[in-house]
Amino acid sequence: MTSNPKQAPAGEMRPGEIAAEAGPATDAALRFVGTIRTPWRTRAECPRQGDIEAGPECRIEVAPPWDGALLGIEAFATLDVLYWLTEARRDLVVQAPRHAEGPRGTFALRSPMRPNPIGLSRVALIRREGATLVVRGLDCVDGTPLVDLKPERCAQSRPG
Amino acid sequence: MTSNPKQAPAGEMRPGEIAAEAGPATDAALRFVGTIRTPWRTRAECPRQGDIEAGPECRIEVAPPWDGALLGIEAFATLDVLYWLTEARRDLVVQAPRHAEGPRGTFALRSPMRPNPIGLSRVALIRREGATLVVRGLDCVDGTPLVDLKPERCAQSRPG
Repeated sequence: MTSNPKQAPAGEMRPGEIAAEAGPATDAALRFVGTIRTPWRTRAECPRQGDIEAGPECRIEVAPPWDGALLGIEAFATLDVLYWLTEARRDLVVQAPRHAEGPRGTFALRSPMRPNPIGLSRVALIRREGATLVVRGLDCVDGTPLVDLKPERCAQSRPG
Repeated sequence: MTSNPKQAPAGEMRPGEIAAEAGPATDAALRFVGTIRTPWRTRAECPRQGDIEAGPECRIEVAPPWDGALLGIEAFATLDVLYWLTEARRDLVVQAPRHAEGPRGTFALRSPMRPNPIGLSRVALIRREGATLVVRGLDCVDGTPLVDLKPERCAQSRPG
């Protein structure tokens, strides 16, 4: 970690922010399993967090062969969705977001800028249309790659 | 996806299970940011899911330079922990776990066997000791690599 904030390659930094000098990420590899469709074309248009009750319907398009992995998912009312935040810089250790009172560590924020830019939203499953799930509660840009779907641990199954 | 279940390279399959013939994962890369310490030395010893109230205290050791990213995390009572399930096979589309009534899609299960074997637990933050967080609610093997920490979206901040 740099002891003094410095200009990092990807994007400007605000006062109080600290970037790490980390080498390339090589510990594990991901495979995208689908694409998320939302009404938001840019980061600036996205809500700061999804609204599981009042947010717009979004679509999670699961790509083959992983569409087969949706078997039985209709039983769950709530899902955890993991996705890849493609545009996010990965070197910030401390950040100074506009909404916070002062600089905060990356792990004390849900900012998309993190060493592993994986987004996590808890969504309501409205319905399934073949290989597509219609959900409410996402906050990401249209076209975001899908990493994983998990039924919520404590969610009630819907009556079969 | 294979239309008929076949023997996959890593481990045996149960009746009704389906494996994908997926190439190597090359869409994105992860950097491990720490190590999780739990009382469980093998998968067989692990609980099926963590208990945020009655589970044992576990330790999340954050590695430099990412320990700096813990700044301010003490304010949160609940965290989402993402970790890498190193031993898990990644090709199962449909699984037949012992606890389920019949075969279910991987995305309708929280099984560690998934195309991107990222575990997700919601934990209670008991205390911070330097670069280590003491938490309750994990369910993974001792030595599991840490991928990310996020404050729970709706969690109350503790009084400062």
